[in-house]
Amino acid sequence: MTPPRAPGPADLVITGCTALTHGPDGEILFVEDATIVVREGVIASLTGPGTGRGPNPAGPGQDPARPGGAAVEHIDGRGTVALPGLVNCHTHTPMVALRGLAEDLPAHAWFNDWIWPIESNLTERAVALGARLACAEMIRGGVTTFADHYFAMDTVADVTEESGLRAVLGQAYFSSQGSEGRAASLDFALRRRGTAGGRLTTCLAPHAPYTVDEADLAATAELARQHGLLVHIHAAESREQTDNSLARHGRTPIGILERAGLLDGRLLIAHATGLDPARDLPALRRAGGQVAVASAPRGYLKFAWDTTPVRALREAGIPVGLATDGAASNNTLDVWESMTLTALVQKHAENDPTWLTARQALDHATLQSARAVGLGEEIGSLAEGLRADIILVDLTGPHTQPVHDLAATLVHSVCSADVRTTIVDGRVLMRDRALLTVDVPETVRELGELLPELVDRSHGERVQEYEG
Amino acid sequence: MTPPRAPGPADLVITGCTALTHGPDGEILFVEDATIVVREGVIASLTGPGTGRGPNPAGPGQDPARPGGAAVEHIDGRGTVALPGLVNCHTHTPMVALRGLAEDLPAHAWFNDWIWPIESNLTERAVALGARLACAEMIRGGVTTFADHYFAMDTVADVTEESGLRAVLGQAYFSSQGSEGRAASLDFALRRRGTAGGRLTTCLAPHAPYTVDEADLAATAELARQHGLLVHIHAAESREQTDNSLARHGRTPIGILERAGLLDGRLLIAHATGLDPARDLPALRRAGGQVAVASAPRGYLKFAWDTTPVRALREAGIPVGLATDGAASNNTLDVWESMTLTALVQKHAENDPTWLTARQALDHATLQSARAVGLGEEIGSLAEGLRADIILVDLTGPHTQPVHDLAATLVHSVCSADVRTTIVDGRVLMRDRALLTVDVPETVRELGELLPELVDRSHGERVQEYEG
Repeated sequence: MTPPRAPGPADLVITGCTALTHGPDGEILFVEDATIVVREGVIASLTGPGTGRGPNPAGPGQDPARPGGAAVEHIDGRGTVALPGLVNCHTHTPMVALRGLAEDLPAHAWFNDWIWPIESNLTERAVALGARLACAEMIRGGVTTFADHYFAMDTVADVTEESGLRAVLGQAYFSSQGSEGRAASLDFALRRRGTAGGRLTTCLAPHAPYTVDEADLAATAELARQHGLLVHIHAAESREQTDNSLARHGRTPIGILERAGLLDGRLLIAHATGLDPARDLPALRRAGGQVAVASAPRGYLKFAWDTTPVRALREAGIPVGLATDGAASNNTLDVWESMTLTALVQKHAENDPTWLTARQALDHATLQSARAVGLGEEIGSLAEGLRADIILVDLTGPHTQPVHDLAATLVHSVCSADVRTTIVDGRVLMRDRALLTVDVPETVRELGELLPELVDRSHGERVQEYEG
Repeated sequence: MTPPRAPGPADLVITGCTALTHGPDGEILFVEDATIVVREGVIASLTGPGTGRGPNPAGPGQDPARPGGAAVEHIDGRGTVALPGLVNCHTHTPMVALRGLAEDLPAHAWFNDWIWPIESNLTERAVALGARLACAEMIRGGVTTFADHYFAMDTVADVTEESGLRAVLGQAYFSSQGSEGRAASLDFALRRRGTAGGRLTTCLAPHAPYTVDEADLAATAELARQHGLLVHIHAAESREQTDNSLARHGRTPIGILERAGLLDGRLLIAHATGLDPARDLPALRRAGGQVAVASAPRGYLKFAWDTTPVRALREAGIPVGLATDGAASNNTLDVWESMTLTALVQKHAENDPTWLTARQALDHATLQSARAVGLGEEIGSLAEGLRADIILVDLTGPHTQPVHDLAATLVHSVCSADVRTTIVDGRVLMRDRALLTVDVPETVRELGELLPELVDRSHGERVQEYEG
C-alpha cells in the first residue's frame, strides 16, 4: 500500500488581495487579505480571515500545502481586488479590424452599405489579425472568456489557443449558404470542442431568425440536441425587427426560436432588446431548455435602440450575461464598460434609481455571464474546484479612492484599464499591464498593411442583405 | 534704437504627434506629424505638413525659433494625439471624499438622508484632501480646467494652485444663510480672481432656484453685472424640479432665472435636464447675456432623469459644455467618459443614430466647454496665442487600433486612462502617467483617517432640506 502522494508545489499563489466571492445564495461577498492557491489550472483554495481559515499560514508567497515550500509563482496582491475573469458573452472578434469604420449610422446602412460589403473581402489573414488584436484588448480589459460568433472560426480558434484565453466559439451561417453553412458549423463544433487543453468550447451559430429560415433553425435545434451543443444566435436585436417579424411571419423572433425547438435546448440569445413582453416572456418562462441572453448596452445606445429588458428577464429566471458585440458597432471589447453601462442604463430604462444595484451588476458580470455561455460549473466565481480564471484590479488610482462601498467602487469608479493582472487556467496572460502572449505592435503593423484591400467596397458585393 | 530682442529658448516643444485643431468655422481638423512650441505658458506655434509650414525645420526637440538651440523641455509625441485639455464645466471637487457612499438612491434620499447630513460635518481638512484627490484624478484623466461650486472655496483655491490646474471657482450659498452667503461668495470671487498666475478665475455661485430665493437671485445678477462676474448655478436638474417650480411659483427654474435678470449676464447653468421646451427655449433664445449649460450625463442615468436636451440647446445657440458633477453622485470626475456618454445617450434620447457624431462630441469637449466656463478666448483649442493647456493621448493600446476615423477612435474607443501627459500653462503636471504635483498615497492615507467622523450622521443635522 502506497501512501497518498503529497501534492507538488502550488503553481501560483496570490496573497494580500481582497477577493470577490459568492455566498450560498450567490450573493456577492468580499474576503479581505485573501490568499488564493492555484494548482494545475484550478483554484485549490481561497482563504482569509473572513473565511474562518485565516490568511496564508505559511506566509506570503509560500505554498500553504507545503509549509516552507515556495510556490512556483507568487503574486503580491496588496492594493488589488481579485475577481473572477470577465466573460464577453457575445462578440465577433475579427471585426476589430473594422473598429470605427462605419460610424453614426442607422443599422440598415451600417449593415448594407458598410459591413456586409466589406465582409465579402474577408481573408483568413485579416480574421487572424483582427482576432489577435481582440484577444489583446480583452486580456488587457480583464476578459478571460469570450463567446465568438463569426466566419473563419478555425482561424479564431487557433488565435485563441495561442492567446491563452478561454472561448466558446461558433461558426456563423446564413440559410443563403444552403445546408452547407449548417454542416460547416457542426463540423467546426465537433472538431474543436474541448481542444486547447479544454479551454475551447464550441457551439452552433445560426446568424439570426431573419437570415436563417425556420427549417434550418429546426434542423439546428435537432443537431444541437444530438450532439449536446449550445446554440448561439442573434434575435430580437431591435423593436423594429420584432415588428417586421410579426408582419412577415405572424411570430416574434423569440416565437420563431420556440417553434423551431431552440428554447428546449441550450440557447444563448444575443441582444433581445426587441422583446415583446406579452408574447415573449411567457415563451421564455415555459422554455424547457437552458436559455440565456447576452446584453451589449453600448451598441444599443449608439443605434438608438431600446436596451435588453434585464429586469423582466431576471424575473423570468433567464440569466443575462454581459457582452460587447463586435468592435465595428461597439468600438470597444470592454466588458467592464458593459457592466457599468448596464447598471446606468437599466436604472434609466426602468425609471428606478434603486434598481440594478452595484451588487446586481457584479452578479451579471460573474455568475450570470458564466451561466449564459454554458460554463456555470467551471468559471464565474472564485471558489475551490473552479478553473483559475482570475483578474487583479488595482485600487490605488485616485479615481477609485476612497472606498466606502467596494461594490460601488468596482462598478462605478473602476475601469478596464485598472485591471493589472489577467490569469486563465492559472496561467498569467498579463502581468502589471504587460501582455505576455500577444505582440500588439507587430499585429497592428501587419493589420495596417491589409486594411486598404479589406475596406474596398468598389466591387459592389455583400455577403448578405439586411432586411431585419 | 535697439534691435528686437531674440526670443529665449522655447519652454517646451512637442514633436511627432497628431494634433486636434479647429478650422475657421470651428470644425475639427487633425494635423499629422505636428510640432507644438510653447513659450511662457502660451502656444507659440503649431506646425505640420497640413498647415503649409511643414514639421519642425530645426529637428525633433529643437527650438524652431533658434535653429541649433534645444528647447528647455522636449516631449516625443509619436504615437499620441495632442488635444486641448478637457474642461470639467461643473463639479464639486471636495465631494470626492464621499465617492460611492450613497448609492442606488433617488435624489431626495440622496440629498436628505446622506449628503446634506454628512456635509454638516465638513472640515477644511476634509475639503482640502477631497479636492486634492480630485485634482489628481482630473490630471490623470486629461482635465486641465474645472468649474467648482462648493463650500470652503478658499481651501479649494489653495489646493488648485498647488496642483497646477486651471479653475473657475465659486463659493456656494443658500438663502438660508441670509445675505451673508451671497456676500461671502462675492468676497471670495473678488479676492481670488486672477490669482495663481492667472489660472484662477472666479464666479458667484448661488446653489439653485429652489434654495436661493428670487430677491437673492436678483441681487446676485446685479453684483455679477457690477463686477463683471460669471454666475454658476444648478437649475432644472430634473423634470420633477421643473414641475414643482411651476406648481409653487408659476414659473420654471429657467423662468425664475430670467425674471431675476440672470439670463442677461454671464451664466453657467448646471444640468438643465428638466427644460420645458415651450417655455424655456424661447427664454434662452432671447437671453441678452452669455448663457451656457454644463451637462453631466452619467448622473442623469443613475438618478433615472432625462438628459440635457443638447440638440435643442445647440439649435438655440447655447453652448453645452461637458461635466461630471461631484463624485458623490457621479462616482468619477472623468470628462472623457462624459464625452463618450454624451455621444451615446444623445443618439438614444433623440432616437437618431446619425445625431451627435464623434466630431460634434469633440466640439462639445473643446470649444463649447471652454466657452461654457467663460474661457473661450484663452483655452479650448490648440492655436497660437492660446494658453498651453495640452494633453497627449496614447493610441498604441490594442483597444484603440486600427484607426479608420480618428474622431471615432477618440470618442468611442479611447478612455481617460489613455491620457499619457497633461500640461497646463506649459507646465507638465503628468508625464507618462506619473503625477508630478500631487502625492496620491499620502492624500488617501490622510483622508482615510478623517472618514469615520466625516460620514457620521448620528447628529441628525443637515445643511439644507431638499425640496427641489
